[in-house]
Amino acid sequence: MPPLSPLTLDRCSINTATLGHRSSIEQVIEAVARHGFGAIAPWRRDLVDRDVPAVARRIREAGLAVSGLCRSTYFPAATRAEFLANVEDNRRALDVAAALGAPCFVLVVGTAPADHKGLGPARAQVLEGLSLLLDHARSVGVSLAIEPLHPMYAGDRSCVASLSEALAMCDALDTDGRGGVTVAIDAYHVWWDWRLSEDIAAAGHAGRIAAFHVCDWLVPTRDLLLDRGMMGEGVIDLPAMRAAIEAAGYRGFVEVEIFSNHWWSQPEEAVLDACGRSFRQI
Amino acid sequence: MPPLSPLTLDRCSINTATLGHRSSIEQVIEAVARHGFGAIAPWRRDLVDRDVPAVARRIREAGLAVSGLCRSTYFPAATRAEFLANVEDNRRALDVAAALGAPCFVLVVGTAPADHKGLGPARAQVLEGLSLLLDHARSVGVSLAIEPLHPMYAGDRSCVASLSEALAMCDALDTDGRGGVTVAIDAYHVWWDWRLSEDIAAAGHAGRIAAFHVCDWLVPTRDLLLDRGMMGEGVIDLPAMRAAIEAAGYRGFVEVEIFSNHWWSQPEEAVLDACGRSFRQI
Repeated sequence: MPPLSPLTLDRCSINTATLGHRSSIEQVIEAVARHGFGAIAPWRRDLVDRDVPAVARRIREAGLAVSGLCRSTYFPAATRAEFLANVEDNRRALDVAAALGAPCFVLVVGTAPADHKGLGPARAQVLEGLSLLLDHARSVGVSLAIEPLHPMYAGDRSCVASLSEALAMCDALDTDGRGGVTVAIDAYHVWWDWRLSEDIAAAGHAGRIAAFHVCDWLVPTRDLLLDRGMMGEGVIDLPAMRAAIEAAGYRGFVEVEIFSNHWWSQPEEAVLDACGRSFRQI
Repeated sequence: MPPLSPLTLDRCSINTATLGHRSSIEQVIEAVARHGFGAIAPWRRDLVDRDVPAVARRIREAGLAVSGLCRSTYFPAATRAEFLANVEDNRRALDVAAALGAPCFVLVVGTAPADHKGLGPARAQVLEGLSLLLDHARSVGVSLAIEPLHPMYAGDRSCVASLSEALAMCDALDTDGRGGVTVAIDAYHVWWDWRLSEDIAAAGHAGRIAAFHVCDWLVPTRDLLLDRGMMGEGVIDLPAMRAAIEAAGYRGFVEVEIFSNHWWSQPEEAVLDACGRSFRQI
């Protein structure tokens, strides 16, 4: 691997979840830009009751890019009608992503409905849901970025639990190589995988890396959802992962996304300061 | 897959951790036998200050088999001396397993020492530690059963986080196909893996399945270590997993191992009753 160049803040994006959704999107845009970051990744919840083109303009005028829009409505459902409604909801979200200028729509795909055993049917529904969206995603120029979640979320958030699985779904959907379906690689979710280096290389070779999210895995981890660490606080070898992703050809933003009771209790300015310092350690 | 035959209790083993290590090993042997189970899997902590041949005799006289001995001292260490001490500790444990008549010694392999990033060096230490033990394991007739743990334990308990990784380690160690290194497949740790069926088939084809552990994944899961469910309480498709394992040629015991604040607060007799009822649902 070639030596890593320092990660300057203009290559960094702040996912709005990192600040805990406490302030308005307009305030968050202002703060992220003022701290010198290059991009922002909003959540759909930030945009409720907002004029999306106005938000998009505000982001541009602040000098920020959009690294992605979070996140999909879960696909799997107990009834066909509910499943199709989920697909339609995600179709509308693709239009929002396009209006924002986001290159990708981040998909947390969901998993088996309550009282169902096993993941096979959920995986089949996810694949069908993506197939129903792919033409629209291509037409609006926003890729469907499958984000494999950590396997500890397989029971309640995502039946796609490894990067290799997400890549196999991409290949199953994009048989003609036209693209439009990609992966969002979050260090927290995939760092444990003995196949990570080869999967990252394969993802890059196929041109499928749409996003690179970072935070850190704390030891001990006290909560399955809300105990993620700032980069450098935990045990993930983030420089090695960044090197692998850059060697695979990725040149996009490094996006910090931290779900944390601790960080959400800190002032937003302190969180952004910590992000800026910690980015330089990657 | 052929239809599954009902799982009779004589095919079932109780791992002593399921009862929370509250009673003496002698009392647990008596209770497990009285409930009609076919085997027991002790922990080394049950044998502290015990005459192991006497415990072995007591297990035999109760009509029980031993499905395995739990578990290894973690291999990785910050110093060479500590690493070698860990290996020697596991060598002595293999002798205990042999004295008990256990077919396998279950390995929870450990992970990177505190303040280390990434898993590569820990994985190399585990592989070396196993290579230092393999001849001895073969000579005493106890296989080294690598148990991949759920990836949520990669930071503090096991750098081996998937069945495919454990199988690759077996292949790296057992290049001449003489055996002596196997896998312990615990449903809780591997159920999320999209490659599970093919990995189980590969493990069976290579003759490497030494143990099949069961419990269930609860939704929601409130604690990373101590919130495992009784079979049927959660979302794992246990009959499908049992079918895959039997189709792969495994004919050994089905062993229930449950770490649970809830079940450890119930009377031991109630836990064993619940195990007996729940086994029949697999």
